[in-house]
Amino acid sequence: MNGAESLVHTLAASGVELCFANPGTSEMHFVAALDRIPGVRCVLGLFEGVVTGAADGYWRMAGKPAATLLHLGPGFGNGLANLHNAGKARSGIVNVVGDHGLEHMRFESPLKSDALAIAGSVSHWVRSCQAADEVGADAAAAVRAARDGAVGRIATLILPADTAWGAGGRAAVAAAAAVPNVPRDAVPAIARQLRERGPKALLLLGAGGSASAPAQQLAAAIAAHTGCRLMAEFYNARMPGGRGRPRIGRIPYAVDAALAQLAGIDTLVLAGAADPIGFFAYPGKPSRMAPAGTALLTLAAPQHDVPGTLQALADELGVKPAAVADTPPPAAPSGALTPESIAAAIAHTLPEQAVVIDEGVTTGRGLAGAMGGAAPHDWLAVMGGAIGWGLPGAVGAALGAPGRPVLALEGDGSAMYTLQALWTMAREQLPVVVLVFANRAYRILQGELQGVGATVSGDKARAMLSLDQPALDWVSLARGHGVPGVRVESAETLVKALRDGFASRAPWLVEVAL
Amino acid sequence: MNGAESLVHTLAASGVELCFANPGTSEMHFVAALDRIPGVRCVLGLFEGVVTGAADGYWRMAGKPAATLLHLGPGFGNGLANLHNAGKARSGIVNVVGDHGLEHMRFESPLKSDALAIAGSVSHWVRSCQAADEVGADAAAAVRAARDGAVGRIATLILPADTAWGAGGRAAVAAAAAVPNVPRDAVPAIARQLRERGPKALLLLGAGGSASAPAQQLAAAIAAHTGCRLMAEFYNARMPGGRGRPRIGRIPYAVDAALAQLAGIDTLVLAGAADPIGFFAYPGKPSRMAPAGTALLTLAAPQHDVPGTLQALADELGVKPAAVADTPPPAAPSGALTPESIAAAIAHTLPEQAVVIDEGVTTGRGLAGAMGGAAPHDWLAVMGGAIGWGLPGAVGAALGAPGRPVLALEGDGSAMYTLQALWTMAREQLPVVVLVFANRAYRILQGELQGVGATVSGDKARAMLSLDQPALDWVSLARGHGVPGVRVESAETLVKALRDGFASRAPWLVEVAL
Repeated sequence: MNGAESLVHTLAASGVELCFANPGTSEMHFVAALDRIPGVRCVLGLFEGVVTGAADGYWRMAGKPAATLLHLGPGFGNGLANLHNAGKARSGIVNVVGDHGLEHMRFESPLKSDALAIAGSVSHWVRSCQAADEVGADAAAAVRAARDGAVGRIATLILPADTAWGAGGRAAVAAAAAVPNVPRDAVPAIARQLRERGPKALLLLGAGGSASAPAQQLAAAIAAHTGCRLMAEFYNARMPGGRGRPRIGRIPYAVDAALAQLAGIDTLVLAGAADPIGFFAYPGKPSRMAPAGTALLTLAAPQHDVPGTLQALADELGVKPAAVADTPPPAAPSGALTPESIAAAIAHTLPEQAVVIDEGVTTGRGLAGAMGGAAPHDWLAVMGGAIGWGLPGAVGAALGAPGRPVLALEGDGSAMYTLQALWTMAREQLPVVVLVFANRAYRILQGELQGVGATVSGDKARAMLSLDQPALDWVSLARGHGVPGVRVESAETLVKALRDGFASRAPWLVEVAL
Repeated sequence: MNGAESLVHTLAASGVELCFANPGTSEMHFVAALDRIPGVRCVLGLFEGVVTGAADGYWRMAGKPAATLLHLGPGFGNGLANLHNAGKARSGIVNVVGDHGLEHMRFESPLKSDALAIAGSVSHWVRSCQAADEVGADAAAAVRAARDGAVGRIATLILPADTAWGAGGRAAVAAAAAVPNVPRDAVPAIARQLRERGPKALLLLGAGGSASAPAQQLAAAIAAHTGCRLMAEFYNARMPGGRGRPRIGRIPYAVDAALAQLAGIDTLVLAGAADPIGFFAYPGKPSRMAPAGTALLTLAAPQHDVPGTLQALADELGVKPAAVADTPPPAAPSGALTPESIAAAIAHTLPEQAVVIDEGVTTGRGLAGAMGGAAPHDWLAVMGGAIGWGLPGAVGAALGAPGRPVLALEGDGSAMYTLQALWTMAREQLPVVVLVFANRAYRILQGELQGVGATVSGDKARAMLSLDQPALDWVSLARGHGVPGVRVESAETLVKALRDGFASRAPWLVEVAL
């Protein structure tokens, strides 16, 4: 058994079933081992950002890490932005990065790079294999490192080519990870605070708190019982929604709106969430969104069993979750494409148990209101703010939740960063409907330019924020990748396109003319 | 004047005329300053790898650095692979990376990243601005750092948002860089060695040696006079070729072929070149290509005035460059598309003073023979081995050499990494003809799999190296980005497509069916 074979055996024995791959020469023995040894399925991406974003989406739905296969430091670099996003989402990923043989690294070859430094900048755990007979143990350590209690982490194993082809490989198995015991000592005091402060207290859901439908129902019952406010973080790795589920508002993206929403609270109870921070800094505006002096109480950290702690809090308060009244689904809209008609079209057509990928940026923000009437679904948002996550995330979510339909909401600007994901959707025939909101601009930046107080008069800045010369033709871009598509300019055609796409149970792109 | 304005004034005063940009919120004041202050032209890329690869191509033709505008650590990550390539090409680039305001960095915001670590992994120089009134001086230092004698370096300036919007900016100017004096003490001894060793000596051109047509002619005359061998490195940042220019072989990519070519030498004279190293390591094969015990003599390092040193060597030897006999251009080919007919079609149609971008990978390697009969041109190769450089490099080369036609040779696998560059070509209406060699495979890896001795029998490895399910439709991909194109399946239609493309003096893509 060579080192590469021990790596594949170890991944398979440790529960890693999928490898998103973009291989190069230094990974050829790993490719050969994946070929020979059953247990790890390979999915090819034509760009590394597809590979890493897919691994993020996969973790969020499957709850277990995928491996990635990347090619030296520059290949890792191409996947870095979506690993940043995955780290912020607390997704677990095991990156395998091929590198030059240890002897060859002394020389200034073209692809020589500092893979440890590049990988270290966004990995929670990184190790470079030093011998073929240690690769199995190193891989088991990587799989263990990709999990931190209830959430995941970025683990990167650098595999020099000679440790892959060298003899003496020994397979290993990663021990199962345990979710740490919840520190329930704080529960009675928090229960008291929520009762006492009532509407001056905010119960804020994040990580496992927003990701679990039963936890959401418990939180809603706690809020109804104590009179406290209840919200979720602006971005959530996974958030169930739709009919029969409580409607939980999210802290707004815009700083002024967030400050207004949080005005008047003096107690903030974190259930898997972090102290709310503005996405960006703006001249003269604060970074923290909660009023100065607000007491921060941590009910559970993200790596804890957040639903279990909410249950303990509900028990302490004597609260039982109540059924949520069903909102009727919205009617099929007609007429012009507006934020309202787009939202209604999506909520009207969304199939049961769909997974929604939200990288719609400016357009996506307006949808929350209508989605309460949609069929029950999971909502996945880009977590680290690095755009180019959506299409790869949809690939991974579809593979992590087999049989469930996926809807990817994309800005045209954001979709361009990793459009190669369309090819993997076609290759794997994944049931993903992609809506591209074609406003032909970096619309969010047109707003941000005003938000930061920058004054602009000329054409140069306008040109840097506009994508209309030439216009991107998304139907052709999709076709080029092997994905059929259609452009729609009315609510009726949008409804039909969504129905057709979901019915096809295959990749399908809709360019929404804005 | 705010910090961002002082930055633009400093760049313009220091000779930076172009900024390849992919902006985000934290760069809005820089965008506003670029808008208001004349002197720096902005070119938008829809992905950061386009931005950084274009800056590399621009340096190689313009001989001066462009700026890039990147968005925090993840944005830099997206540009990292082509900065790796640019560093290996010794291209000078001034990266401006927007970051959170200094106060905001304390908090765990979604886009918080370790920009210094990410940028530091591939930059020769990196600095984070600490105050608005220091931004100008920092920018001048960055421009200086982007040059090292005759070659360039990667300089990265991190610009926290509050140093951009803060008042008190002061513009500065980067002092002009000098090319260090050539250490000519070694010249007489090297002249003696070349005379004595004759065919046992190899004069190896790199950097300024291969990049200058007069230097090539001097080197050819020196080889003819002394009987030494003459070659260039396998990859060259810029290498003139075509009719009326000496034919200088390059060290082969394949290790066995390189070892065979260098067999029998005992003296290696480096003229801007480095000791030849294998691209990858292979089991049982050496990393160094020169025979063990070969004497290494450095005539000039890359940052020196390599052409001037070759002139000194020629003077020492009493050698004058002779005119090179003109090779007749090849006839227009007909019939099937073969490596030979493709090479003839390119050599037949290439316009005078074209710039050829070579990321053709397996197909590109076969062209060298025919190009001696082509019109005089410059040949630019990807230098760091990170694919995805070609299309962005073509954007930059076209902007760095206004009026000259550009031909980009691309593998279909490599072109997919940064295909968004097509949009910038269309937006700027650059005279770039793109040939995509559509073999629908990672053909190079199919060879490498055998090269490393990996044995494969099954479909999984084949699937990871094949791009045929589904086939990429390059004409649609180009159209989607606003670039017209055509697919050709014969030599005659390839010749016509090349002629049409060059005549259009605008972007044009040809999918070459292999």
